[in-house]
Amino acid sequence: MNIKPLFDRVVIKMVEAEETTKSGIILAGNAKEKPQVAEIVAVGPGGVVEGKEITMQVKVGDRVLISKYAGTEVKLDGQEYTILRQNDILAIVE
Amino acid sequence: MNIKPLFDRVVIKMVEAEETTKSGIILAGNAKEKPQVAEIVAVGPGGVVEGKEITMQVKVGDRVLISKYAGTEVKLDGQEYTILRQNDILAIVE
Amino acid sequence: MNIKPLFDRVVIKMVEAEETTKSGIILAGNAKEKPQVAEIVAVGPGGVVEGKEITMQVKVGDRVLISKYAGTEVKLDGQEYTILRQNDILAIVE
Amino acid sequence: MNIKPLFDRVVIKMVEAEETTKSGIILAGNAKEKPQVAEIVAVGPGGVVEGKEITMQVKVGDRVLISKYAGTEVKLDGQEYTILRQNDILAIVE
Amino acid sequence: MNIKPLFDRVVIKMVEAEETTKSGIILAGNAKEKPQVAEIVAVGPGGVVEGKEITMQVKVGDRVLISKYAGTEVKLDGQEYTILRQNDILAIVE
Amino acid sequence: MNIKPLFDRVVIKMVEAEETTKSGIILAGNAKEKPQVAEIVAVGPGGVVEGKEITMQVKVGDRVLISKYAGTEVKLDGQEYTILRQNDILAIVE
Amino acid sequence: MNIKPLFDRVVIKMVEAEETTKSGIILAGNAKEKPQVAEIVAVGPGGVVEGKEITMQVKVGDRVLISKYAGTEVKLDGQEYTILRQNDILAIVE
Repeated sequence: MNIKPLFDRVVIKMVEAEETTKSGIILAGNAKEKPQVAEIVAVGPGGVVEGKEITMQVKVGDRVLISKYAGTEVKLDGQEYTILRQNDILAIVE
Repeated sequence: MNIKPLFDRVVIKMVEAEETTKSGIILAGNAKEKPQVAEIVAVGPGGVVEGKEITMQVKVGDRVLISKYAGTEVKLDGQEYTILRQNDILAIVE
Repeated sequence: MNIKPLFDRVVIKMVEAEETTKSGIILAGNAKEKPQVAEIVAVGPGGVVEGKEITMQVKVGDRVLISKYAGTEVKLDGQEYTILRQNDILAIVE
Repeated sequence: MNIKPLFDRVVIKMVEAEETTKSGIILAGNAKEKPQVAEIVAVGPGGVVEGKEITMQVKVGDRVLISKYAGTEVKLDGQEYTILRQNDILAIVE
Repeated sequence: MNIKPLFDRVVIKMVEAEETTKSGIILAGNAKEKPQVAEIVAVGPGGVVEGKEITMQVKVGDRVLISKYAGTEVKLDGQEYTILRQNDILAIVE
Repeated sequence: MNIKPLFDRVVIKMVEAEETTKSGIILAGNAKEKPQVAEIVAVGPGGVVEGKEITMQVKVGDRVLISKYAGTEVKLDGQEYTILRQNDILAIVE
Repeated sequence: MNIKPLFDRVVIKMVEAEETTKSGIILAGNAKEKPQVAEIVAVGPGGVVEGKEITMQVKVGDRVLISKYAGTEVKLDGQEYTILRQNDILAIVE
């Protein structure tokens, strides 16, 4: 992975919406504004962001729930990623 | 429960709207913007959120009143949950 | 009363709009955006709310003036209440 | 007067728009968004409001200029009053 | 002058738009959103405004440039004045 | 020049859009929202602006790039100027 | 390069959208709101921006991902550049 997010941003890879995850979460593929399961592939360094100290709470490999429209999509080596702020992550799924 | 909310977020399970709760609260199912009774199933760690120190005032098992459209819905093992910020909780019902 | 409001929220019970209160306030029932007289039935603990220290200035039993559309309505034991922030209270009526 | 405004709010009584005040201010009754002359009948205690220290600069009896649509109207003993924040007062007229 | 503006507000008297000022500024009378030349007739005391210390940089008699729609108009003794915040003044004209 | 901008404002004179500047910048005259080259003719004193300390980074004679619609236009001695905040200046061109 | 961006702004040169970068990123040329790869050609000094201390995390030569509509375009010597704030940069591509 050659993308280093700045500040409190993280890069995530969406998990297929129809897939039944280990934790049993199933999300309809055409649901509007519904959160989705994603895997974190890169984490920014945190630090002072817009004058506020931000500590990163997630790490590479974490599975997280995010709002469907959070962040910005980017395509890399044929795989789609999303770059978003840590604060747009709702929860870690274990 | 395998969902660990970040920061000041909590995971709640809505109580059936037509149900008469122990405390006698009855909420019409089709009322718009009316608060609803929910049970807390997971609580984030709090801490510094957007530069402000947040202490969590609710705990797992609390019954709370929330605005109907607060938070984001997520489906887990056939049960619908909502993830919202503690500040979107109006009151604890005892 | 089994509702414990969080932070700087208070629970109020609206006084009938047509009623002539002791202090002589009469409020038309169909006036738009007009304040209404309400009685406070529960008061949150105050404290640090969104990074600001809030001291509660009202107590249970106070009669207050509020904007008609402030807060969120909730029905309890057949009685309607409103949950709102202390800052949405305009004045105490004595 | 039985209304005690909270925080930095003040209660004012509008002076008739057509009236020629002592200071010679005449305000057209149907002017849109034009300020109006009012007399202050109650003043809140000030203090820390939304995390900011507010000192009250007006006192009961002051005649002030306000924007026509500032604040919230309330009727008391047949007289209309307006409750607004001190910061919505433009100037004191002497 | 009997108007004492509060906080960081100033009272100004518009200079006729067609007039050629000493400094040579000519402003078209029907220009939209164009600044205008005005003379300051009263200055508030400054101090802490909305939690921020404000020092007044203008004085009575200063000629200033303001945006056409800044502030609130008020009529006094047949003369129109505008009450606006010091921060709505663009520049002093000498 | 008789205009003294307040706070962090600067007065600039637009450089003709079709002109080829020394630094080789050419800007189409009818481009929407495109920045333009301007020369600074007056600089405010900076200081505490809206509670934040501002140090002026530009000086009279600097050529700067600004967004086309930033600031307010003013006509002086037949020449059009624009008054804008330093923060609306994108870059200094040397 | 004769453009010196102010504060936390940077000047970037877009990399052709169809180009396959070394890191394998391919971005469709007509994608809406999609980020794009750009190379940094000038970096502002950072410092206190709007009352917040900003440290620059990028340097000249870095390849970065940005949102397509971030910043302001400027044409210099026939080459288009974009001036944007560091915070509009999503990630560094290595």
